[in-house]
Amino acid sequence: MSKKILVTGFDPFGGEPVNPAFEAVRLLPDEIAGATVVTLEIPTAFTRGAQVVEEAIERERPDWVLCVGQAGGRSAITVEKVAINLAEASIPDNDGEQPFDTPLRADGDTAYFATLPVKAMVKNINDHGIPAFMSYTAGTYVCNAIMYNVLYLLDRRFPGVKGGFIHVPYAVEQGVGKANGTPVMEVASMAKALEFAIEAVATAEDDATEIMGETH
Amino acid sequence: MSKKILVTGFDPFGGEPVNPAFEAVRLLPDEIAGATVVTLEIPTAFTRGAQVVEEAIERERPDWVLCVGQAGGRSAITVEKVAINLAEASIPDNDGEQPFDTPLRADGDTAYFATLPVKAMVKNINDHGIPAFMSYTAGTYVCNAIMYNVLYLLDRRFPGVKGGFIHVPYAVEQGVGKANGTPVMEVASMAKALEFAIEAVATAEDDATEIMGETH
Amino acid sequence: MSKKILVTGFDPFGGEPVNPAFEAVRLLPDEIAGATVVTLEIPTAFTRGAQVVEEAIERERPDWVLCVGQAGGRSAITVEKVAINLAEASIPDNDGEQPFDTPLRADGDTAYFATLPVKAMVKNINDHGIPAFMSYTAGTYVCNAIMYNVLYLLDRRFPGVKGGFIHVPYAVEQGVGKANGTPVMEVASMAKALEFAIEAVATAEDDATEIMGETH
Amino acid sequence: MSKKILVTGFDPFGGEPVNPAFEAVRLLPDEIAGATVVTLEIPTAFTRGAQVVEEAIERERPDWVLCVGQAGGRSAITVEKVAINLAEASIPDNDGEQPFDTPLRADGDTAYFATLPVKAMVKNINDHGIPAFMSYTAGTYVCNAIMYNVLYLLDRRFPGVKGGFIHVPYAVEQGVGKANGTPVMEVASMAKALEFAIEAVATAEDDATEIMGETH
Repeated sequence: MSKKILVTGFDPFGGEPVNPAFEAVRLLPDEIAGATVVTLEIPTAFTRGAQVVEEAIERERPDWVLCVGQAGGRSAITVEKVAINLAEASIPDNDGEQPFDTPLRADGDTAYFATLPVKAMVKNINDHGIPAFMSYTAGTYVCNAIMYNVLYLLDRRFPGVKGGFIHVPYAVEQGVGKANGTPVMEVASMAKALEFAIEAVATAEDDATEIMGETH
Repeated sequence: MSKKILVTGFDPFGGEPVNPAFEAVRLLPDEIAGATVVTLEIPTAFTRGAQVVEEAIERERPDWVLCVGQAGGRSAITVEKVAINLAEASIPDNDGEQPFDTPLRADGDTAYFATLPVKAMVKNINDHGIPAFMSYTAGTYVCNAIMYNVLYLLDRRFPGVKGGFIHVPYAVEQGVGKANGTPVMEVASMAKALEFAIEAVATAEDDATEIMGETH
Repeated sequence: MSKKILVTGFDPFGGEPVNPAFEAVRLLPDEIAGATVVTLEIPTAFTRGAQVVEEAIERERPDWVLCVGQAGGRSAITVEKVAINLAEASIPDNDGEQPFDTPLRADGDTAYFATLPVKAMVKNINDHGIPAFMSYTAGTYVCNAIMYNVLYLLDRRFPGVKGGFIHVPYAVEQGVGKANGTPVMEVASMAKALEFAIEAVATAEDDATEIMGETH
Repeated sequence: MSKKILVTGFDPFGGEPVNPAFEAVRLLPDEIAGATVVTLEIPTAFTRGAQVVEEAIERERPDWVLCVGQAGGRSAITVEKVAINLAEASIPDNDGEQPFDTPLRADGDTAYFATLPVKAMVKNINDHGIPAFMSYTAGTYVCNAIMYNVLYLLDRRFPGVKGGFIHVPYAVEQGVGKANGTPVMEVASMAKALEFAIEAVATAEDDATEIMGETH
């Protein structure tokens, strides 16, 4: 029986007309490297986002969960290494919630590392000609929250399932009217990058071992 | 009789395997807004680049000349306003020439402004969802040199013909291996942007009047 | 009896002639807001750095530990919120060690949050005219390692002592020869910023409550 | 008889409480490398700025004129190579004027190159540990306007006098409240940089010959 990956993308927030995260996710094929791909748009909302993903995991029973969000201002695809137990929202979410100075889960660890093969994902995206980097912060908004909640839930309730998160830049059309210097990327390139990331997930026996660290 | 635009793009330089400038130019359709589009790859070389363009102008007798080059590190399409009478090359060109502290033309003006409707070009690219800005420096390398030489030649020899220059960012695949934060753009988006720029050239009676200045 | 803060700064690494971290630390006065300030230069080395700080904590028995490091490329003072249990060194440390894919402490938590009043520190630095931000990644090199090790040790061995980490930009002279656009700051301004941060530590009853989050 | 340099700095504009340009200029000593230094605060105004400088040149009869302005967002001291005959103001000046699509001088050249030894200035600032670069655009606001007007006037009315322009970054305190990543510099460092630039002006027989060009 084929394996299954659940791929989520957020709906638009912060006044943007689209969210390239779900725009890219919706372009994914139904199958990648033999694995079934199930896509899901989720609300950019601290509480409801986590609920929708939890229900989808229960319903779909995937082998892997990959959430995708927008990190406006980044130039490349970034695969997140770690999610932290903190909500610190600089703008309200789509349900009007704006938590800050608050742990996401009172009984959760301070942080969870992604359990997907993150280096292999970064490497496979780059190997196919799209710039990608490892990131060591998923922010403090709904992106970090969904990544944290997924890894918390997988750890508690679905121990065999692996999870992770990818941030995508602004889409090209979002760059219009923003400051000169704001990087953008086409949604089609993001979708390709997601496909290469999922290919790495579906085929990697072990993670890659390239060094992807920093100098501070 | 239909009008004609000559659009040039440079060949690769500086160790890059491709130059997105000509990659984008070669994707242009044969006709835009009723105008015939003639494309030409030119060498990234101070002396020979200008010769090749001059010969093409003599041969094609275009109504407009638009040269396209790469400005690695810029995030958006930039339409150049001005070219200066200076060669200051930080790396050798593709013929091994590395002029510096040198005027491009001993008898030329200190600078020439683009004579294409640059604001209308910027506006039309943005209006179609691709970020574009006016730029007030075309650099000091072969891009500025070709823009300067074209405007010099048009002024001296082809007074009715109008000219200008557009810089494009790195292509997506050029971002692989470069520093995190380096902006990229798909060649297909660049080609679309060039098409919208040329549409503005072919249809604008007068230039647009939006303010596209700076605060220093 | 007056309270005591131990402030450490790294020695130079990565080919730089100085490390502005310790250059700034050494400018600190002996007393700030009634608290005694003890400064210490520590090696930019994964293993030995942690040992030297642990010995200093045993010797000095401070109330607070603040470590300071360089984050070249950042524009402002950044107060770190979290340290993660990961060593991923893109260059060897000053002892020739280059750990990667390795936890810092086999028995440590995935991450520790700083226990100093980080928001009050950010706020007090800004209130005195020096730009400061909260940061949610201390990197994966020796800076994150020392912050992680200090918080691990305080948690295990010195439960009443609070700890944290501040990153400083390149010093002005380090900017010479680097790429245009590389931010710098004078060491004297960094020292002032550290003084305001320590003032916040020494006087804050509770942390500040301004929102200092992100939008991804 | 000693030589004389007139050094101008703009007053605050654009809602900023100070302008680091004049703050730095006012810190200059009365004499640098044997040359007398005369400083002058000038209004950030297209028309009046040029008038005030012209009157000062008539009154002081300097050998050199160096104008200094703020280029918020730049990270280093930048010595301007060229001023263009264009006013394109994205915000009103301090007299409420907002010219755009307008030449500064109907009878002026399209551009003037700085006549001070700009490379020697860049080199001497860097040699003393402060990052400096050549810039090939002085913008389209009052900075470019004053540089253009000075070079136009020197060319027409004061042929032996040489002129140029230096841009300084935001001062440190201006960085508070601006976006993370905005570079700043201490006013004292700017003043030192101006001093080294003026030292180069006062002592250089010929300009330096280092290559300070770009790759586009």
